[in-house]
Amino acid sequence: MFYPEIKVVDCTIRDGGLTNDSFFEPEVVRAVYQAACGAGIDYVELGYRNNREMLAPEQFGPYRYCDESVLRQAVEGIENPKGTKLAIMMDSHKSIADDLTPKSESMVDMVRVATYVKDVDKAIVLANRAHELGYETAVNIMAISAEGSPFLDEALQQIEEETKALAVYIVDSYGALYSEEVQFLVEKFQKHIKTKDIGVHMHNNQQLAFANTIEGIIRGAKFLDGTLYGLGRGAGNCPTELLVGFLKNPKYDMLPLLDAVSRHILPLKQSIEWGYRVPYMLTGVRNLHPAESIRWMDSAEKNDLVKFYKHLEVDLE
Amino acid sequence: MFYPEIKVVDCTIRDGGLTNDSFFEPEVVRAVYQAACGAGIDYVELGYRNNREMLAPEQFGPYRYCDESVLRQAVEGIENPKGTKLAIMMDSHKSIADDLTPKSESMVDMVRVATYVKDVDKAIVLANRAHELGYETAVNIMAISAEGSPFLDEALQQIEEETKALAVYIVDSYGALYSEEVQFLVEKFQKHIKTKDIGVHMHNNQQLAFANTIEGIIRGAKFLDGTLYGLGRGAGNCPTELLVGFLKNPKYDMLPLLDAVSRHILPLKQSIEWGYRVPYMLTGVRNLHPAESIRWMDSAEKNDLVKFYKHLEVDLE
Repeated sequence: MFYPEIKVVDCTIRDGGLTNDSFFEPEVVRAVYQAACGAGIDYVELGYRNNREMLAPEQFGPYRYCDESVLRQAVEGIENPKGTKLAIMMDSHKSIADDLTPKSESMVDMVRVATYVKDVDKAIVLANRAHELGYETAVNIMAISAEGSPFLDEALQQIEEETKALAVYIVDSYGALYSEEVQFLVEKFQKHIKTKDIGVHMHNNQQLAFANTIEGIIRGAKFLDGTLYGLGRGAGNCPTELLVGFLKNPKYDMLPLLDAVSRHILPLKQSIEWGYRVPYMLTGVRNLHPAESIRWMDSAEKNDLVKFYKHLEVDLE
Repeated sequence: MFYPEIKVVDCTIRDGGLTNDSFFEPEVVRAVYQAACGAGIDYVELGYRNNREMLAPEQFGPYRYCDESVLRQAVEGIENPKGTKLAIMMDSHKSIADDLTPKSESMVDMVRVATYVKDVDKAIVLANRAHELGYETAVNIMAISAEGSPFLDEALQQIEEETKALAVYIVDSYGALYSEEVQFLVEKFQKHIKTKDIGVHMHNNQQLAFANTIEGIIRGAKFLDGTLYGLGRGAGNCPTELLVGFLKNPKYDMLPLLDAVSRHILPLKQSIEWGYRVPYMLTGVRNLHPAESIRWMDSAEKNDLVKFYKHLEVDLE
């Protein structure tokens, strides 16, 4: 009834950090880590390890850099009976391999490298250096719905041949994919990716994040991303609690997740707005970067949906 | 690129009436009707025609009965250039055929009869009487995820043989279905329903209402229900604006829908709460009637998700 090889990655803190520049209260991060461990989630991602000189460091909180001391504080003393692994993300264009220590000196188990197709060579360098240092790795290809060129096929073939990544991800950054496109992309990935798993990270602009994750499972994806209550920038993500409700593996337990949602995620609603809104839907339908809709939702006109619809209609030739 | 035979039914006022006992301001109803006409929606359902003696009439607003005078006020003077048809719903166990006038004296084009499998004989009587009076008809089978018995097959065969309904609906009242179950049910319906279309009405407890509607389309469903911004009791419905964003038929226009959402549906958020919440999700995952979760969300404990989870765990033998 279930696929034991499926891995759930909860990235509430990492992806949710895009809503608050990674300024989380340490007790929220500890609560999410504790919930993931209690629930038997396979990986919990606690932030980015971006390079301070490549960002404006005063603008971002500690979970944008994930210094080892920060990670240690986040997990110290929390029971981890089911062996939940700790992940961090490095952006291929905002991170450098020198910020990684050898695995033996680190709390981290997996380094996930996020990349656009155009930066795949940077991503491969980072992933390979992380592998040499002893980490598990994954490569997450962002904005996949905007990647229609042969360069995607080339990038996939390179990742297959040149890295030891455990997984290569389809990341629907724009929230634009319909189920038939998920099928198309998984099958495209499968043409190149023979020795690694395929992962899916879906956005909820069209209320399809969970559905597209299920479609990924049906087509053969094995790494599945979620965030608690869908926390994430704009329309948010596939809710981890929905994934656990769907998956039949008895090792998962929804209750610790619900406890963390009750105590730590629902209260964030007072300061952070996320979830389905028409402007996010409209950029998803049009396969556009969500930046315009996020700016619109920060404006006084946010509920003037007709104006935003027309704002997006810039004719091309 | 599109199926011209697909029909979209906007039931914002009818289904949304379950959130407010059908007490809508008349200008909201007119705005929804106007939006549906402007958008080229095929049918717009403005309420129930239930029998006053079968309900406690003082508890419900005018759109629970849809007297012809009420419907006339709702549509009078509004342009309908694309021929949007007007629908009402009758519950098989709360309605009587004597409340229908001949079509020639009515604003109504289609009568949809909602029924549980056990009441299908009542539904057939109602649908046939409506047909004789000159109306188009449909039969909507509620709580479909709880209907695993051979009586469902028998009911479908009866509807096929004994009625002139244009469509027979799969109604996921519990918000419990996953895509593979939608496929299973459409195929089951297709075994019996040869001379009518299949319809889908999906609830959003698991954020799957839109995705399951798309799955219905892929499998052959032709009648699709939605409500503006997903308005509906509990987790709500498939958003009509998402459906129109997905369907490629050039006759549809999203803008009038967005205008109505901006002006009339978003303001309802001040008095009505709907959309994804964990308690609604939990009854969906467990294939339970949503009543428990709706009561919970009206209680002071609504955000104690662990307590609700345990509240639902009543062991059977």
